[in-house]
Amino acid sequence: MNGRLAVIGLGPGDPRYLTPDAEAALRDAQALYGYAPYLNRVPVCAGQSRHPSDNREEGARAAAALRHAAQGARVAVVSGGDPGVFAMAAALCAEIEAGPESWRALDVVFVPGITAMLAVAAKIGAPFGHDFCAISLSDNLKPWQLVERRLDAAASAGFVIALYNPVSRARPWQFGHAIERLRAHLPAATPVVFGRAVGRPDEHVRVTSLAEADATPADMATLVIVGTRETRVIARSGQTALVYTPRAAAEVSA
Amino acid sequence: MNGRLAVIGLGPGDPRYLTPDAEAALRDAQALYGYAPYLNRVPVCAGQSRHPSDNREEGARAAAALRHAAQGARVAVVSGGDPGVFAMAAALCAEIEAGPESWRALDVVFVPGITAMLAVAAKIGAPFGHDFCAISLSDNLKPWQLVERRLDAAASAGFVIALYNPVSRARPWQFGHAIERLRAHLPAATPVVFGRAVGRPDEHVRVTSLAEADATPADMATLVIVGTRETRVIARSGQTALVYTPRAAAEVSA
Repeated sequence: MNGRLAVIGLGPGDPRYLTPDAEAALRDAQALYGYAPYLNRVPVCAGQSRHPSDNREEGARAAAALRHAAQGARVAVVSGGDPGVFAMAAALCAEIEAGPESWRALDVVFVPGITAMLAVAAKIGAPFGHDFCAISLSDNLKPWQLVERRLDAAASAGFVIALYNPVSRARPWQFGHAIERLRAHLPAATPVVFGRAVGRPDEHVRVTSLAEADATPADMATLVIVGTRETRVIARSGQTALVYTPRAAAEVSA
Repeated sequence: MNGRLAVIGLGPGDPRYLTPDAEAALRDAQALYGYAPYLNRVPVCAGQSRHPSDNREEGARAAAALRHAAQGARVAVVSGGDPGVFAMAAALCAEIEAGPESWRALDVVFVPGITAMLAVAAKIGAPFGHDFCAISLSDNLKPWQLVERRLDAAASAGFVIALYNPVSRARPWQFGHAIERLRAHLPAATPVVFGRAVGRPDEHVRVTSLAEADATPADMATLVIVGTRETRVIARSGQTALVYTPRAAAEVSA
């Protein structure tokens, strides 16, 4: 009797972004694990047990799900967005590597989802029209010095930058420092997009500039996109502005 | 009578990755535009006209779709993967910016999809468990010198790297040069993942190393993921190996 573990991306929140693959994997599970607010997005299904846990307990949650699957159950771990992008898939893999040999024999599948950077981008145009990167501003699991080094590398080489986890209650200053850092590389007018809770009822998307970015409210539900020297804003009468980065880059930027 | 234009991400190819949002937008369209192989993935719907075009005609395709929508039609442009990642969304925005004022008044929506890097990652574990970037190796629209500069910046700052468009008939040497370039920054044992046609019947995923990467076949349907110094391969008996990048980075890498 071999257990099965599915690590499922729920996308940005609204069921219209949930893939049929993810929906089938959710229905198939006997037990659901996840951060409570993500678990609450999953419709209740008779006979399924639910195991909510707090944020920042990824390792313990992953281990609990693996133990359950190793007993022969069909277990699902849910993530917002895509499980592979600053979410549960890496935590699961780390537990499998550190855990008993039996965990390596489990049937493990990862079900991709629409990650926040793509959901926010789609609301505003095509900010990632050219080469891009994603950086988590959380310094819980890496030194802040490394975040700064990556911001420097990305901005000076002309990558569009997605900033995940810009601000939390425990990390109030990091986002301001990151914006300040980026100003050393990019013009004050560089377009910056704030997308909050995209795909949920309180969705809010705002276009601003690098000059104004640190005065704009952000929290853990916010995804910030910092453009390049080439990123353009198209004003439209009667429609929201479009933000895009042209596919062509004529010269080495920055 | 206002036209409507939807730029729709089909995901990796299999309908199980197509979001309900994308499916609804496809059904709603009166006319479908796209690169012929992508258009062929969309089920035929009575009363819809189809306008296939060749690859590398993105600008002309976007302009044709905009003209059609400006006549008051509900038009859809389809992309593989996500329309905002090396696909049609940026081409559409560029045509809107350059085109007549009436195109700015159109109702334009972008429907996100599962992009290739996330689909390939999900097949193998969590290679993007840490900060990452995406670089198109096509030098049709940017100088090769800029590609090299971005490879240097990304590898030396410890980003996991997704390489889109690694090889085409017209660009036979770029991928080998890129791998050679990365070897100056990363150990020969750095894990490299090749994912070809993921989500389609001829899907193939292979794990190799930076030392072997340029000897591994790749084409335009291949997405290549180059790990960091921290990226791990977990061998599993009776299961395929898992590749993941730990969420924690203890020091400045590379």
